[in-house]
Amino acid sequence: MDELPVSRLVRLSVLALGLSACTVGVRRAPPVRAGASGTEQSRAFVAQATAAADRIAAASDDAPTAAWYRLAELVDDFGSRITGSPALDQALAWAATQMRTDGLDDVRLEPVKVSHWVRGRERATIVRPVTRELALLGLGGTVGTRASIRAPLAVFDDLDALRASTASLDGAIAFVNHRMPPFDDVHDDPGYLRGVQARLRAASEAAKRGARAVLIRSVTATSLRTPHAGALKYDDGVPKIPAAAVSIEDAELLARLARRGPVEVELSLGARTLPDAPSANVVGELRGRELPDEIVLLGAHMDSWDVGPGASDDGAGCVAVMEALRLLRQAGLTPRRTIRAVLFTGEEYGLSGAKAYHERHRSERHVAAFETDYGMAAPDAIGVGGEAGMAAMQPLLPAFGRFGIRRFRDHAFGADVEPIVGDGAAAFNLQPDGHHYFDIHHTAADTLDKIRPEDLRRNAAAIALLGWVLAER
Amino acid sequence: MDELPVSRLVRLSVLALGLSACTVGVRRAPPVRAGASGTEQSRAFVAQATAAADRIAAASDDAPTAAWYRLAELVDDFGSRITGSPALDQALAWAATQMRTDGLDDVRLEPVKVSHWVRGRERATIVRPVTRELALLGLGGTVGTRASIRAPLAVFDDLDALRASTASLDGAIAFVNHRMPPFDDVHDDPGYLRGVQARLRAASEAAKRGARAVLIRSVTATSLRTPHAGALKYDDGVPKIPAAAVSIEDAELLARLARRGPVEVELSLGARTLPDAPSANVVGELRGRELPDEIVLLGAHMDSWDVGPGASDDGAGCVAVMEALRLLRQAGLTPRRTIRAVLFTGEEYGLSGAKAYHERHRSERHVAAFETDYGMAAPDAIGVGGEAGMAAMQPLLPAFGRFGIRRFRDHAFGADVEPIVGDGAAAFNLQPDGHHYFDIHHTAADTLDKIRPEDLRRNAAAIALLGWVLAER
Repeated sequence: MDELPVSRLVRLSVLALGLSACTVGVRRAPPVRAGASGTEQSRAFVAQATAAADRIAAASDDAPTAAWYRLAELVDDFGSRITGSPALDQALAWAATQMRTDGLDDVRLEPVKVSHWVRGRERATIVRPVTRELALLGLGGTVGTRASIRAPLAVFDDLDALRASTASLDGAIAFVNHRMPPFDDVHDDPGYLRGVQARLRAASEAAKRGARAVLIRSVTATSLRTPHAGALKYDDGVPKIPAAAVSIEDAELLARLARRGPVEVELSLGARTLPDAPSANVVGELRGRELPDEIVLLGAHMDSWDVGPGASDDGAGCVAVMEALRLLRQAGLTPRRTIRAVLFTGEEYGLSGAKAYHERHRSERHVAAFETDYGMAAPDAIGVGGEAGMAAMQPLLPAFGRFGIRRFRDHAFGADVEPIVGDGAAAFNLQPDGHHYFDIHHTAADTLDKIRPEDLRRNAAAIALLGWVLAER
Repeated sequence: MDELPVSRLVRLSVLALGLSACTVGVRRAPPVRAGASGTEQSRAFVAQATAAADRIAAASDDAPTAAWYRLAELVDDFGSRITGSPALDQALAWAATQMRTDGLDDVRLEPVKVSHWVRGRERATIVRPVTRELALLGLGGTVGTRASIRAPLAVFDDLDALRASTASLDGAIAFVNHRMPPFDDVHDDPGYLRGVQARLRAASEAAKRGARAVLIRSVTATSLRTPHAGALKYDDGVPKIPAAAVSIEDAELLARLARRGPVEVELSLGARTLPDAPSANVVGELRGRELPDEIVLLGAHMDSWDVGPGASDDGAGCVAVMEALRLLRQAGLTPRRTIRAVLFTGEEYGLSGAKAYHERHRSERHVAAFETDYGMAAPDAIGVGGEAGMAAMQPLLPAFGRFGIRRFRDHAFGADVEPIVGDGAAAFNLQPDGHHYFDIHHTAADTLDKIRPEDLRRNAAAIALLGWVLAER
């Protein structure tokens, strides 16, 4: 999962609610229609869905660890898969082969040019009032420092404090120490959407005030001295300054030292942006039996950051989508509409896969677009964009319940499918238990051991059922 | 907290139970005497202890964050404090200054020669069947590799499997993948004592079978790709081979790859052992008003591993002991016996501070020896060596309860005080909530932010009360 600015999250809900009313050219087919034709039709469909769930469950029971072993192959053979890397190319080719093995229709690699940012060597050290190495990661897309920068630190508690500051930061390294709170059980909120703002925006905000570089606190509530990567956004017309994230532990140290007196940091980032590189989205389908030109998109993204194998973000999502189609095929469930798996490239940095897909396929009729990019913890919820969709889904909850889905939530997010949703497709996404997703997000610890085979299996089955439901009505 | 072989843990309990009966020269004064003189005397003492607790609480309330800020100074100014490092020297001198500031009696640095092992540069890479860097830490005391070693990996599920193996490991790198289970709530057991055996013993066990080097899985149940340091023990007469711990994530990766076919690893450790270095134990006292030659020892250790500032292991212990004496003095509680704070050096590697203290002070009458070296999470228990001690302590539980102590446990451990306990002193230790101690133990994440000021404050107050109780009866 890449950064989702708040505006995007909200927009997806709004779009899904009723964008067809206010956007030219939108063709939106509510994929699950309750109401008018009545309760009877609805009941019949629930029965059909329950029968489909039975068949999906049987297919899943036949090979309960298949998806997990496939994910092991992906992360172990290729490792981290940042855009521009040979590992990403290999993983995309591998995925196409897997889809063909599964017997999907029209499996292909659709070429996409992707951003090609490389980290290089990087290092940061507190040099005053003590000498201490910092655990850090340059942010995705940052410029390098050329030579190292040694500068006094100016500490801000959060992005708002930096924005509110009128003092000059001339020659300083700005440090934004926004503390992401622990998972909020009451609001079922990991605090990421607010937490990520500093990562996205601090560089340009600091640059406007004359800063030479910026450090942020890693966007997480939990750390074992774990820095978190992730993209930044440079504003147009503002100098691009180097930007990196330090671990929570080091952020606290910097803040404590700064309360006692001047702090100086030496920062060296070897980051560079190379010319765009060739890449591809991987597409494979279950062709619809009645309405093959109406598409239910099931998406995930294959690229990761460079510091870990991206098992949860989003290798597991890719494997779950592949598994969902495999299960449907295995179960002999040929859907009415076409179910299309899309493994996007370039989600983490630039969304070039999403843009290219939209460009190429915008004229096709997408009735729904689903993404799984929120980890693969225990099944919990499916996000549904819009109240009408919620009402229509609700009777189907028991069918999903057998795979651990215990609720539908009234918002959906997924950066890759946003352009398609923007054109009017109904939005859905997978929302497994989110308590620990951001502990490992964009870190070297986003590894296979964090994912239970049974969670992956059940989520994949739920996605299969969702695909069937959306394609069948 | 250093490695405590199981035998030591058990011995401490046994010793405390009744070693005076079977060891020559032991002079053991049960510090809390119930029984004979009867319930009335006991009641009077409980009332006295309750009054002492009131005064300690009042002193603590006066400066509730004093200890935490002192700990911040320690870890921020000096950082990690491995034996032989200038940081350890500076921290020891600082501690003596702090104790003098607190008005303790006879504060001094008692010279000790300590082991001087240095890590050097280190690196390990899977080179077959894929290329992947490993997150690792050479074990304390390991020999280096000179040039790098490239060798096939031989995987064992645990130390027993390695010991049971009769195959030659000639030329291989042995890998012991013992999985430390999550904290066992039923038995209140972190699983460390079993888990640590591979760290201690794998090198010599593997060397006996011809291995060129050994890797172990880090001794933890929780990881964010976090390798854990800690000492090993080389057996006499067995070749010393290089040894390092990999993160849980990398251990799982190695195990998965090995199930698929041959794995080769390239390992390079720059570790060296230098000549022993000068260091010191820091000693300071509250002189006893009636029995100044009878000593209640309150201990902790100042040295840490080199990869983190050792906030929980055992900077917090040192500060808590200092704070305990400060609180007693602040509360005007001059004890009957002498309460002696000892901040040991060299606990993590060689126990040279403990040995030197014992050598120098063995002829003194230690009635009790307490150590705090199990982190500084929420107050929970005080460990008591022996049943008789347990019975005597039990009536005092309500007095300790005000500081969060909810039980006494019938075993105590503490590597530094073991020789003194071996001579007959009653054993005690602090056992805060242990759920997360081994998550950060011997890692770069053993930092101040893991410690809540209120936990440190209440544990320190409990130690003060324990010191008073042991010194007063």
